[in-house]
Amino acid sequence: MNVAQPIEWTDKGVVMLDQRRLPGEVIRHTYADYRDVAAAIKDMVIRGAPAIGVAAAMGVALGVERSKARTLEELRAEFLSICQTIAGTRPTAVDLFWAVERMSRSFEQLAAANTPLDALRRAMVEEARAIHAEKKAIDEAIGCFGAELMPATGQVMTQCNAGALATAGIGTALGVIRVAVEQGHKLRVLVPETRPYLQGARLTAWELREGGIPLTLITDNMVGHFMKTGSVAAVVVGADRIAANGDTANKIGTYQIAVLAHEHGVPFYVAAPVSTFDLTISSGEQIPIEERSADEVTHLCGVRIAPDVTVANPAFDVTPARLVSAIICERGVARAPYVESLRRLAGSK
Amino acid sequence: MNVAQPIEWTDKGVVMLDQRRLPGEVIRHTYADYRDVAAAIKDMVIRGAPAIGVAAAMGVALGVERSKARTLEELRAEFLSICQTIAGTRPTAVDLFWAVERMSRSFEQLAAANTPLDALRRAMVEEARAIHAEKKAIDEAIGCFGAELMPATGQVMTQCNAGALATAGIGTALGVIRVAVEQGHKLRVLVPETRPYLQGARLTAWELREGGIPLTLITDNMVGHFMKTGSVAAVVVGADRIAANGDTANKIGTYQIAVLAHEHGVPFYVAAPVSTFDLTISSGEQIPIEERSADEVTHLCGVRIAPDVTVANPAFDVTPARLVSAIICERGVARAPYVESLRRLAGSK
Repeated sequence: MNVAQPIEWTDKGVVMLDQRRLPGEVIRHTYADYRDVAAAIKDMVIRGAPAIGVAAAMGVALGVERSKARTLEELRAEFLSICQTIAGTRPTAVDLFWAVERMSRSFEQLAAANTPLDALRRAMVEEARAIHAEKKAIDEAIGCFGAELMPATGQVMTQCNAGALATAGIGTALGVIRVAVEQGHKLRVLVPETRPYLQGARLTAWELREGGIPLTLITDNMVGHFMKTGSVAAVVVGADRIAANGDTANKIGTYQIAVLAHEHGVPFYVAAPVSTFDLTISSGEQIPIEERSADEVTHLCGVRIAPDVTVANPAFDVTPARLVSAIICERGVARAPYVESLRRLAGSK
Repeated sequence: MNVAQPIEWTDKGVVMLDQRRLPGEVIRHTYADYRDVAAAIKDMVIRGAPAIGVAAAMGVALGVERSKARTLEELRAEFLSICQTIAGTRPTAVDLFWAVERMSRSFEQLAAANTPLDALRRAMVEEARAIHAEKKAIDEAIGCFGAELMPATGQVMTQCNAGALATAGIGTALGVIRVAVEQGHKLRVLVPETRPYLQGARLTAWELREGGIPLTLITDNMVGHFMKTGSVAAVVVGADRIAANGDTANKIGTYQIAVLAHEHGVPFYVAAPVSTFDLTISSGEQIPIEERSADEVTHLCGVRIAPDVTVANPAFDVTPARLVSAIICERGVARAPYVESLRRLAGSK
């Protein structure tokens, strides 16, 4: 099954699929300079927390690999500057800082062990590739645990793009669907377009079509109609942040899909890695909601579609745990009460 | 309060606001030939069942008024051709046939009474203007009955455009809001954009702004979030067809708004004239759902926003009566059980 890779490490440099141009154009850029990787992260060539983490690690590795430094001191000075550039691209991306932090730890360990510079450069590249491989393994595990929850046949709904394009693996929510289809489930995916940024229409529809998985694209206000007419067997979505009690922040629109699923007796699953669990917050009420630019609502493809009026544009909403049938992570499936099940999974290996 | 009139009878002919160009451009066309009125109806310069009815009546009147016929027989032959042209513009518009039918009855009564041709021409124009005046009176009555149900202060939500642009009066759902605001209620309107055709963003947002009524434009997937965060006091929408049991067909997305309103304890009102009651059907299950072109979902302003995939595009959905708090018509307010209340209102004057 074809998996659309948003980022790859190659001998020529870091190759990125330009997601801003999808689905109209499939363009890949090859970056041989870490500054170009930084610019690509900043300019949203790549998106999705895990994929941004991989891009950050590869950007740091690229900088070290191509560095002309001749001494460890020179290389360290350059390394700090590289890390600063990469970390400065997207100020709210947790995975970005995590990846830079991990690359830094690796660098210091290698330096402390007096690793020769050439070997150190190679090891840093290996570390970035290891991060990518780990992200892929996490998605595969989520996919396997989640596939068991998918119907043998029928339609499943998702929201936004929790796919390969977002994770650099097989995806979380879409990974679950992908593994189920590979295992022989006969699924069709109902894809809400996910206004205002249209990640469903632009990315998920494209990714599923590339993967050969049947889909039907709908507008966001058709969700209830299709649930009522009985053609949705399950919902599976990703998550941006999950509180200790199971309350889940995800792309705007997820909450109302969960309410509608509950009303129609349709199971609602969240598929997300343990890294999205935030057990330091007790409930979703503590999750701040990012308000984005009004232009995303009033304009499409640069064309104004609404008059100049007041606009609301919350990027996320919070789905209370009582509407979540299960949370699927790489270590297993959590069910209510989530305070216990999430803590158990977060603490396990 | 400024009411945007989609159609007006003037000495120069029928003046129509070109709704296809809103909100970008405010363009009015003056039609002195009934064939141009027919073309305007067909090409969606005007939309909304009541407004189309008014346009049809005015088109017929314009044809008769401008006819060069010198005998009743000549005029009748021309009249039949005019009616055929107008009736052939939108094959599913019930109000269109109703208006043509009524103009025909009026013509035959005037002819039977040996009315002189000049007087007959003037009387036909008066009949079309009377239809327009009746539509306005219906909206005013709906507005007055509905205003009592509006909160003294707070946010109310609507869907699509059940406004002046659709009815040629003050609107049904928006008429309720308008009268309430005129009576001193402090309301702000939450306007879902109403994909795929964006009647909310393009028409309702424009109409409310023109009328000086505060609004906030949102995407269709933000409805649940705003209900959950507690900022919606009531929902009021229009209707395309109401079954004997109160089940209501309206623009796609209405059903899920009703479910979300119910979940959050928000009253959900339908505002529609008695002419939308269809007591010959016992429930909403008998209402066929029109499936429209995939292009409306995959393209916006001529730009492709999704890959070439399977698309669903039901134009309407059906809200079951149990989710409807009240149905507001020009004769009063119907509450459950609707089988009785709708029959009573339909039979009263």
